[in-house]
Amino acid sequence: MSSAAYRVVGDWGTSRLRLFRQEGERTVDRVEGPGVGMLDGLAPAQALRDALAPWRRDGDPQRIVLCGMAGARIGLAEAPYADCPAGVAEWSTRARHLELDGIPVAIAAGLACVRDDGCPDVMRGEETQVFGALRLAPELARGARLLALPGTHGKWVRLDDGRVQSFRTFPSGELYALLRDRSTLTRVSEDDAGEDEGFADGSARARSGDGLLGGLFHARAAQLRAGRTRGWARGYLSGLVLGHEVREAMHDQPAGTPVTLVGDPGLCARYAALLSDAGHAPALLDGDACASAGLHLLEDALPWT
Amino acid sequence: MSSAAYRVVGDWGTSRLRLFRQEGERTVDRVEGPGVGMLDGLAPAQALRDALAPWRRDGDPQRIVLCGMAGARIGLAEAPYADCPAGVAEWSTRARHLELDGIPVAIAAGLACVRDDGCPDVMRGEETQVFGALRLAPELARGARLLALPGTHGKWVRLDDGRVQSFRTFPSGELYALLRDRSTLTRVSEDDAGEDEGFADGSARARSGDGLLGGLFHARAAQLRAGRTRGWARGYLSGLVLGHEVREAMHDQPAGTPVTLVGDPGLCARYAALLSDAGHAPALLDGDACASAGLHLLEDALPWT
Repeated sequence: MSSAAYRVVGDWGTSRLRLFRQEGERTVDRVEGPGVGMLDGLAPAQALRDALAPWRRDGDPQRIVLCGMAGARIGLAEAPYADCPAGVAEWSTRARHLELDGIPVAIAAGLACVRDDGCPDVMRGEETQVFGALRLAPELARGARLLALPGTHGKWVRLDDGRVQSFRTFPSGELYALLRDRSTLTRVSEDDAGEDEGFADGSARARSGDGLLGGLFHARAAQLRAGRTRGWARGYLSGLVLGHEVREAMHDQPAGTPVTLVGDPGLCARYAALLSDAGHAPALLDGDACASAGLHLLEDALPWT
Repeated sequence: MSSAAYRVVGDWGTSRLRLFRQEGERTVDRVEGPGVGMLDGLAPAQALRDALAPWRRDGDPQRIVLCGMAGARIGLAEAPYADCPAGVAEWSTRARHLELDGIPVAIAAGLACVRDDGCPDVMRGEETQVFGALRLAPELARGARLLALPGTHGKWVRLDDGRVQSFRTFPSGELYALLRDRSTLTRVSEDDAGEDEGFADGSARARSGDGLLGGLFHARAAQLRAGRTRGWARGYLSGLVLGHEVREAMHDQPAGTPVTLVGDPGLCARYAALLSDAGHAPALLDGDACASAGLHLLEDALPWT
């Protein structure tokens, strides 16, 4: 381990903590730790100390920049939300500043919006990927764009000339995990084959215009009456839920709005296929690269003393 | 306890067993036991013996008639499905006959259908309530009718001249329980007030034509940003899910189709309000009374020797 001057940037979500050690422009090391929702009574500050301990043997970092659930009520310290419409300036000035054992720490603000239907919505962490995407792909700052960040709580973000206008959350990842692991819908067969065919069947069902709720039980009935496997049922439920997300999210978008997917490449490929089936041609950006770019953008924008 | 000759009829579902002791036309006692899905490794036959033990001290019943998951693969003995269209005759002849310690036992067949969209569907237990409803309310045997049996796996049953034509399952009760107990959507506030207002808001959202998936996260965002309670969020999710069930189930029904709700009176009252908001005027039948009538109908129809 080098003893050079270093900074730490990181994404602390509900399910995991990822910290990156920066020396100059280079990322020289990374560590992982438990998410904010996985601390089991451990104080967030102590969890962060535990994760940083190997690096601190050679000296403390100059500063730490965190995004995500680190700024939630249950996180390290509650950071505010920046209200939409918001660009980098509004977002970065609302970061929360504190110290950990004398080390300056900044926690990124989340974003909040009130949609056209009057409903509030929130994000913590995805905004860092969105602003990072704008740095990596400057063409996204021109005109009206839709950014989709699929995941546990997937976000569909409307950009106008590089500012976040509003967004909508689809908790598809959370719903799918509940259906897969906790429901009776997959518990008939014990054969895990057939997942890809199931995904295709579920997404076709979503495209048919049929409702989501009335499509769910088919995962179970097809095992009982049509010889389908548990693997098929899992794929079917995934295709059904993700297909409905794409359908609902694109429903009120002006025709021709360019769509960019930001996230895990494997998951984004599935959404790209669903969008393509619906007549769209999305661009793809790697979520980790966007998060990293957003954290550096925030670090650069903040007034470190 | 009387030592008179008696029979036992019962409904053995996933979550509970309910047995009724019959002497002549009268129900003189009842006992409860664990559902087929709650046996934790206990053999179903032993669970049934345990529940019957108090009555058997004075002698064995003449016979036992069971419906529901008693006939599932994980139940007492697998009973077949009768294929729709099916009336009482097709259903009763497919009952499974066996003996328990020398006592004749009949387990009601389930019903299976293939809907217009080519998808199979199944029920076990609700068919007994449907045929019981036809006995209690003979006008249901005239023309085209829709029977709704809300619950964990709610069934919407199309009757034509007293025969079950087809049906569709909406796993609304199971989905709602997962969202309420296992998701992050209700876990912000710790205040249980406001459930009725939440139900009204959720059902209004369902009526608005907005998708189900995009409506879910509002349960969480409204706690974070609009001062809503956990109680409100639970009510909202219930209204949203049940409202979507009614909307999807009625979507392709011919205008003017009479609807009858069969089930728990409190739950049916909620569905009646949702149907009424959508311009329908459903009749209501008590689910326990229909199950009992259906079990007696089956007992009468079977060839006991």
